[in-house]
Amino acid sequence: MESPFLLACRRQPVPHTPIWLMRQAGRYMPEYRAVRDRFSFLDLCHNPEASAEVTVTAVEKLGVDAAIIFADILLILEPLGVGLEFGPGHGPIIHRPVRSRADVDQLPEIDVAEHLSFVFEAVRLARRELPAHVPLIGFSGAPFTVASYLIDGRGSRTYVHTKSLMYRDAGAWHALLGLLVRATASYLNAQIAAGAQAVQLFDSWVGCLSPADYREFVLPHTRALIESITPGVPVIHFGTDTAGLLEALRDAGGDVIGVDWRIDLDAAWARIGYDRAVQGNLDPLALLAPPDEIRKRVRSILTAVEGRPGHIFNLGHGIIPETPVDHARLLVDTVHELSAR
Amino acid sequence: MESPFLLACRRQPVPHTPIWLMRQAGRYMPEYRAVRDRFSFLDLCHNPEASAEVTVTAVEKLGVDAAIIFADILLILEPLGVGLEFGPGHGPIIHRPVRSRADVDQLPEIDVAEHLSFVFEAVRLARRELPAHVPLIGFSGAPFTVASYLIDGRGSRTYVHTKSLMYRDAGAWHALLGLLVRATASYLNAQIAAGAQAVQLFDSWVGCLSPADYREFVLPHTRALIESITPGVPVIHFGTDTAGLLEALRDAGGDVIGVDWRIDLDAAWARIGYDRAVQGNLDPLALLAPPDEIRKRVRSILTAVEGRPGHIFNLGHGIIPETPVDHARLLVDTVHELSAR
Repeated sequence: MESPFLLACRRQPVPHTPIWLMRQAGRYMPEYRAVRDRFSFLDLCHNPEASAEVTVTAVEKLGVDAAIIFADILLILEPLGVGLEFGPGHGPIIHRPVRSRADVDQLPEIDVAEHLSFVFEAVRLARRELPAHVPLIGFSGAPFTVASYLIDGRGSRTYVHTKSLMYRDAGAWHALLGLLVRATASYLNAQIAAGAQAVQLFDSWVGCLSPADYREFVLPHTRALIESITPGVPVIHFGTDTAGLLEALRDAGGDVIGVDWRIDLDAAWARIGYDRAVQGNLDPLALLAPPDEIRKRVRSILTAVEGRPGHIFNLGHGIIPETPVDHARLLVDTVHELSAR
Repeated sequence: MESPFLLACRRQPVPHTPIWLMRQAGRYMPEYRAVRDRFSFLDLCHNPEASAEVTVTAVEKLGVDAAIIFADILLILEPLGVGLEFGPGHGPIIHRPVRSRADVDQLPEIDVAEHLSFVFEAVRLARRELPAHVPLIGFSGAPFTVASYLIDGRGSRTYVHTKSLMYRDAGAWHALLGLLVRATASYLNAQIAAGAQAVQLFDSWVGCLSPADYREFVLPHTRALIESITPGVPVIHFGTDTAGLLEALRDAGGDVIGVDWRIDLDAAWARIGYDRAVQGNLDPLALLAPPDEIRKRVRSILTAVEGRPGHIFNLGHGIIPETPVDHARLLVDTVHELSAR
């Protein structure tokens, strides 16, 4: 029988609502921290055995319905030689950000087969080690979010350099996003060839845009990317702060639209349309609440979308390091228990 | 004749769409930077003459339809003795954040008459110096946003301490917000007594909450605050990332609902209801675009709400330091020109 996760991606009836957690292999988990004692973040990403190990361990510890390959959305930028660094105590930094037409023109095409083979090897290893009934999700950053790091050089509250380039030199912007679309399509399709059974596109920061800017500067690229993905493989299209953008995200594509906690899930689904599945949408911070509060919130989300096939339970964004592992497990068990049909 | 700004607050017809800009007296403006060469940020806030001066200068330089008193939403926390600091190169920091019931219980009531008289004096001076036809807006932080700084101790991406207190000790949370409501009501009413003709409530970070959490933990407090404000004085209720929260913000109150750029203004107004005015909603970053692009975006917003009284033009959040002053002026002129009736 097909897994509840893949059934839900296709809006087919499921024995229980499937759940996985963004960043389910992460710092909140002691087994992950033990591996990180032996590797820097980038070294861990570059090591297929270790990446596969933390991928599989998270599934074993949590009992979730899907695995997601351990990697980072910015690995695809390493071949560009822009000085990607993951330092302790801060987010990723790009030491030589791309801010002009000249900068864009100097970028080489990204040869994912040559430079990102360690990811595909990790996918192969993880797929081999996972139980047959647990699907493996591949992923990438979406072109906008990856570009925002490449241009601003770090996480940003205003995205001043990203929006400056977008507004002042649309030609350079579209050239850059075209390059990222080509690389990302190859990257996701190679993950699929290596064994990924679904892919998630993380457009984590796209919610900083107005709907009009999204439609003009992002949607055509995201659509081109999604249309390039191997047919038949479910695509989860995820962003945060998207309560004003949901229709536009849907128009860009995706079998499943990821929704964060800033909007009620039933209201979000009504706007997206019932011809798509949805994924979400518990506030990751809710896992800091006492067990009874967590149960109450899970019940509220499940009730909001009850009786309609096509809901994958998840957090609205990645699990945070301060999360008690017991609470993550409680969440998974509660979703399974309350949604059992 | 009453000013276009006050007419629009009451949804009455106007000769042109009124406009003012959040943080219109700010670092993007050379006159402001010249004053800041003489004062630290806090010293400037504490000096009524200088605060009034930058308030009035912004109106003179931009030609906007309203002034807003120069101050900061965190000044109300100074009497608590929690170690508020505005350092160079980072946002505000609270050195002794409030994180437990015991911390909350130790907080004194805030005596705004005793501790914040410099703000009321600035309001009196600014009102005296402003042209009669330019209304003066008073403001405060909304209880949630002020509490989030007080608890997390600095700007936060996850609000881990704020949400922890909220979820783990609802009693402490409601006690803290009650204290902030009492202080903020006195603070706003004293600004009104000193000459403020409208007030804006900044719930800038409230968009980090789910609609259910907003309704349970914030709405009753914001509603109590708004109901305490001197009758007849228009209240602008503003937040960012609120595209999933607009109905709940409206239910909390406000004659005018401030909307950010992450949702189309006409879609937002339809959800808020036409018995309220709206304020917004150009992306502040759009002011980095070339003049033609700025004009196009202004036209698009004006067209979306054309023919319905009750729109105040503004940015969706504060103007950023990188903004060319010429572009801010162009924005004001363009709104006036394109909306002239």
